[in-house]
Amino acid sequence: MTRTELIQQIKQKKSFLCVGLDTDINRIPQHLLAEEDPIYAFNKAIIEATEDLCVAYKPNIAFYESYGVKGWNSLQKTWEVLPKNCLSIADAKRGDIGNTSKMYANAFFDQSISGMSFDSITIAPYMGKDSVTPFLDFEGKWAIVLALTSNEGSLDFQNFTNSNGKQLFEEVIDKVNSWGSKDNLMYVVGATRGEGFIKIREHAPDHFLLVPGVGAQGGSLQDVCQYGMNKDCGLLVNSTRGIIYASNGTDFAEKAREEAIKLQQEMEIELERAAII
Amino acid sequence: MTRTELIQQIKQKKSFLCVGLDTDINRIPQHLLAEEDPIYAFNKAIIEATEDLCVAYKPNIAFYESYGVKGWNSLQKTWEVLPKNCLSIADAKRGDIGNTSKMYANAFFDQSISGMSFDSITIAPYMGKDSVTPFLDFEGKWAIVLALTSNEGSLDFQNFTNSNGKQLFEEVIDKVNSWGSKDNLMYVVGATRGEGFIKIREHAPDHFLLVPGVGAQGGSLQDVCQYGMNKDCGLLVNSTRGIIYASNGTDFAEKAREEAIKLQQEMEIELERAAII
Repeated sequence: MTRTELIQQIKQKKSFLCVGLDTDINRIPQHLLAEEDPIYAFNKAIIEATEDLCVAYKPNIAFYESYGVKGWNSLQKTWEVLPKNCLSIADAKRGDIGNTSKMYANAFFDQSISGMSFDSITIAPYMGKDSVTPFLDFEGKWAIVLALTSNEGSLDFQNFTNSNGKQLFEEVIDKVNSWGSKDNLMYVVGATRGEGFIKIREHAPDHFLLVPGVGAQGGSLQDVCQYGMNKDCGLLVNSTRGIIYASNGTDFAEKAREEAIKLQQEMEIELERAAII
Repeated sequence: MTRTELIQQIKQKKSFLCVGLDTDINRIPQHLLAEEDPIYAFNKAIIEATEDLCVAYKPNIAFYESYGVKGWNSLQKTWEVLPKNCLSIADAKRGDIGNTSKMYANAFFDQSISGMSFDSITIAPYMGKDSVTPFLDFEGKWAIVLALTSNEGSLDFQNFTNSNGKQLFEEVIDKVNSWGSKDNLMYVVGATRGEGFIKIREHAPDHFLLVPGVGAQGGSLQDVCQYGMNKDCGLLVNSTRGIIYASNGTDFAEKAREEAIKLQQEMEIELERAAII
């Protein structure tokens, strides 16, 4: 999916919502356990209930990988039902030396090899340039590189500061920017510190940002938009638990839709406020 | 596998060799393509030809993942034939927020969930403490954290330096040290700059180091030992291409064994020089 297509989807759906598919067999409704593949059945129902309200889906690969071969089978089937008008994000946090990153790129981008072709993948930048660039060699695909995350340990290394007062996450954005463009690079920026987006936007004014941490993790959508939105929106705000686990009864898909509608409506207000729609 | 058991294996086999299983369908001998699972057939033959000469095997997960469900099946079967007296390393470079790292730990450490239980996994540290500690909660398992790698892009971020002259890889080792111990933590340190080990050993004198980059990538075993060996050996030196692709004919396993013998003999000299055996 190109940048232009993504922006079109945002304007059309009046939404920049990404739904996280961190599907945990221990948290899905009991009645689904009778299905042949409960994780896939859950995902399919969630997707059908939300696809007109969001512009991206983000399966968290760890949740599938934890079940080994069986889990990869659920991931494969889930990939097959992801709507083509939504950006598909393999949330995999991969990154290795060049020849190995190339293999990870094949895994998530080359259907003829792996059976799957996501639009994008999340990348950990610690190993530098050759760990990122193999993902940028695929036309129409995106590398979404970790910059400033929202988790407890995010500041252990990400705010390591050089003698000019520059923090590691700033160095990451500046260097990674030079390896690609706003058409094939995004950054992961956590929502838990809205004002943190000011500094991010100094380094990446035009790039899309994938933003976890709104809702369950405590980030405010309004703060994220105030400090992080750009003229093309430039944000994909992820929600996982608040949507997919809104209910663990037989009404789980309906309740997920209700929560997605609430977020879409808040997002519509922000897009109007910024005169994007 | 405990630290004591690993040291025993090193002394007994007079070797600290790790064989990398970066098995690429395009590089294995043609005659194996007739097998039902050529990657597994290749790995099994390499393991049988080398298991008395090495103390660790390191499947590079990307090479399996690139084939999707089928590749994970080859990985599962390969794990089943890894000898119990060798440290098994899932070279996966994983790392995510706490609840997700827990899922990755289940994938590689908990056989009851994923079907596999490696002794160790490689970890990317960018996301900090909660991305590493879930792997340390498993008794007898190891987290092998990236410190200073040997690839082209390694210095893009790993030598980012604070106002006290401390580099990021040093900060990583110091902080990660405080989350575990020499009994459940190792570090990845590339072999391409032998003298680089002096600084590593200032921060991690007692930990085992997993060392890629000897041979094909240009590192010298003698330099690594001179600067990196400690009283318990403290090194696992990986070789991949030099061993597993020593021949692409029907004699591939035999030639792999010959190359492994050469390395084992060089290692025996180093272990004797350091009075470890």
